[in-house]
Amino acid sequence: MQPPRNERARAIAGHRPLLAADPATVTWLTGFAPEIESGPSPFSAPPLCVLDPDGTVVLIASEDEADGAREGVEVRAFPGFAVEDVDRRAESARLALEAVSAARQLAVELAALPGSVASALVRAGVELEDVAGGLRAARAVKDPDEVDEIRAAVRVADAGQAAARSAFAAGRTELDLWTETRRAMETAAGSRIPVLADFVTGVRTADVGGPPGDRVVEEHDLLLVDLVPRVGAYWADSCATVASGDPPAQARDAHEACLAALELAVGLVRPGAVAGEIDAAAREAVGGYPHHTGHGIGVTNHEEPRIVPNSARVLEPGMVVALEPGSYGDGWGVRLERVVVVTDDGCEVLSGHELEL
Amino acid sequence: MQPPRNERARAIAGHRPLLAADPATVTWLTGFAPEIESGPSPFSAPPLCVLDPDGTVVLIASEDEADGAREGVEVRAFPGFAVEDVDRRAESARLALEAVSAARQLAVELAALPGSVASALVRAGVELEDVAGGLRAARAVKDPDEVDEIRAAVRVADAGQAAARSAFAAGRTELDLWTETRRAMETAAGSRIPVLADFVTGVRTADVGGPPGDRVVEEHDLLLVDLVPRVGAYWADSCATVASGDPPAQARDAHEACLAALELAVGLVRPGAVAGEIDAAAREAVGGYPHHTGHGIGVTNHEEPRIVPNSARVLEPGMVVALEPGSYGDGWGVRLERVVVVTDDGCEVLSGHELEL
Repeated sequence: MQPPRNERARAIAGHRPLLAADPATVTWLTGFAPEIESGPSPFSAPPLCVLDPDGTVVLIASEDEADGAREGVEVRAFPGFAVEDVDRRAESARLALEAVSAARQLAVELAALPGSVASALVRAGVELEDVAGGLRAARAVKDPDEVDEIRAAVRVADAGQAAARSAFAAGRTELDLWTETRRAMETAAGSRIPVLADFVTGVRTADVGGPPGDRVVEEHDLLLVDLVPRVGAYWADSCATVASGDPPAQARDAHEACLAALELAVGLVRPGAVAGEIDAAAREAVGGYPHHTGHGIGVTNHEEPRIVPNSARVLEPGMVVALEPGSYGDGWGVRLERVVVVTDDGCEVLSGHELEL
Repeated sequence: MQPPRNERARAIAGHRPLLAADPATVTWLTGFAPEIESGPSPFSAPPLCVLDPDGTVVLIASEDEADGAREGVEVRAFPGFAVEDVDRRAESARLALEAVSAARQLAVELAALPGSVASALVRAGVELEDVAGGLRAARAVKDPDEVDEIRAAVRVADAGQAAARSAFAAGRTELDLWTETRRAMETAAGSRIPVLADFVTGVRTADVGGPPGDRVVEEHDLLLVDLVPRVGAYWADSCATVASGDPPAQARDAHEACLAALELAVGLVRPGAVAGEIDAAAREAVGGYPHHTGHGIGVTNHEEPRIVPNSARVLEPGMVVALEPGSYGDGWGVRLERVVVVTDDGCEVLSGHELEL
C-alpha cells in the first residue's frame, strides 16, 4: 500500500512509467533518504526510482542502503562497500535501463537523469517527457505521514533554538555556541543529522545569514540563528534573533515589526490564500527585506509553495510553509520564523521555539 | 597559469574539449568545492566545467559560488539565491551547451552529465567519448599544491583525534564525545567542515564502523574513531582505537598486530610498489580484515590508488595513500590509520595523531 502522493505522481506520469532521478522525488516516492553530510559516497551512486503505471515502486540503490526504503518498495541493489572495484554508476544505469526496458515512452526528470541513462534512452528511440515541474508542484501538498515527519523535525529544531538561546553570552565564539546548538539537536534526534544553518552574531547579522565562525560575541550583540535540520527524510526550519544585553534601539523596533509581520502572515494562511498576497502583506508590515517571505519544506528545505512577490500560487490543505520576515539595518539584522501546516480552515503552527529578543 | 593536473586532463581529452560533470573532477580542475553538508542546495545546481584544448578552464556555477574558483578560471554563472523563480538546472545546462557549441566531438563524464545536456548533445549528433575512467586514474597523482591542501586537512584530523582521545571516558555518550571531537576540528579549521566518521564504542567496534549514537561508554570499552574531514576542497583521513581502562586481552594483541601491519605497509610504500602486494603483506600480518588495506585521498575521500587484493596498480611519486589495517573479534574491533605521500624514494607520513591504545 503506497501513500496518496504516489497516486498523484502516477497521474502526472500518465500511462507511462516514471523514471525519477531528482533525489527529492526519489525520497518522496520511496521514503529513502541517503546520507548527505559528507557529499557523494565513493561506495554508492545517486538513487533512482521507477514508478510503474500499476503502482509498483522500484528503488535502485546501493545494497548498503536498501533498508532505507519504506515497506512495499521493491529494491534493486548494486554493490555497496566492497574491496572489489565496482563501477556503481554503471551498475545503477544498467538496473534503471533494465527496469524500463519495455517502455517506448517514459516520464522522466531529465535534468537529474544520469547522462548515461538519458543518452541510451535517446539512442534507443524512447520518447521522453520531462515531468520534473509537475512533480515539484505536487510535492507541495503533504500527506498526513509527511506532516508527522516534519512535526518531529520541528521538535528537533526547537531543541536547537532553546540551546542557542541559552548558550548565547559575551566572550564565546560563534563556533562554540554552534557546537552546543548542534549537540542539542543531535541529542534530540539520537543521531548525527544534517543541518543547514545561518548562525551569525553582532555586525554579521546585517548580512542576513552565514555560517558560524570564530567571531567572539560582545556585549549588546544580536544572535541571528536559523536552524534547518533534516530528521529522517524530512526537513524542519526555524529562526529567532536573540539579544545579549541591550540591543540597538532600531533592532528592538525591527523585532517588534517582524513579530507583527509574522503574526499577520500566519493569520492569512488558509486554503485559497494567494502566496503573493501573503508576501505583500508581511513585506509591507516590516518595510521590506531582501529575501522571500516564506517557502514550503518537506523532503527539501526550500520548495513550493514559495511565498514570494507576485506569486499566484493558491494555498491548499496539507501544504507546509515556513514564514520568515526579517529586517536588516546598519550593523544589525533580525529575522523570525514559524512553520505552519495549512488546515481545512486556516493553519496550525508547528514551531514551538521562543521568539523573544 | 593552471596547475599540471589540468595539462594531464587535456592530454586525456585529446584534441576535444572536455565537459566535466563529476563533482570531484570539477573541483580538481577549478579549485571550486561546493557546500555539501546539507545536500543539494535549492538555490544551486551541480557545477560543470569545460576544459578547452587551448587550456582555458570554464566553471559553470551559481553566482553565489563564483568566488570559489581558483585564479585564472573563467566563471559563467547562473542566478543563485533569489526571490524570483529560476530553473537553475536549466540555466546551467544552457550555459554548458553554449560553452561547447562549436564542438562536434566532446570528451565527457557521461554518467555524471545532466541528462538534459547529454540528450541534447546526442540529438545534435555530437560524438561523445566517456573519459571518466582516465580522469579518475589521473587524479591519483597529486600536484604539490594538492599535497599542501591534504597536509592542512590532516592537521585538522589530528586535532579531532586528540580531542576524541582526551574526551573518552566511561559514563559519556558517543554523541557527547563526538561533539567535542567535531568542535576541535571546526575550531582548528575556523569554520564548519564536512566530516565523514566512524565513531563507535564497546561492542559496536566489532561492526568495523558506524556513526555515533546514544550508547553510554562503559569501563574497559574501546573507542574506534575514524575521522575524515574535508578542509577547503581536500579530504584527510585518520583512525585510532583508544581503550578506557583495561581492554580485552585479544584487543590488546590485535592492536599490536595492527600497529606492526601499519608500519610494514608504510615501509613498503615507494615508487614502483604494487598495490596488491602491499595489501597482501599488511593483511597477512594481521590475519585478515573485511575491508581494503588503504586508498587514495584528495578531492574525494576514497579514490585511486586503492590498496586492495590483487591490484596491479603501481605507486608513483605524488600519490597520497591512507593505510588502515584493522582487526575485529567477538565484541571488539581495532583499526589504525596513517596518511602517507609517495616521495621519490619512499614515502612521507603526513598523519601526526597518537596510535597508542
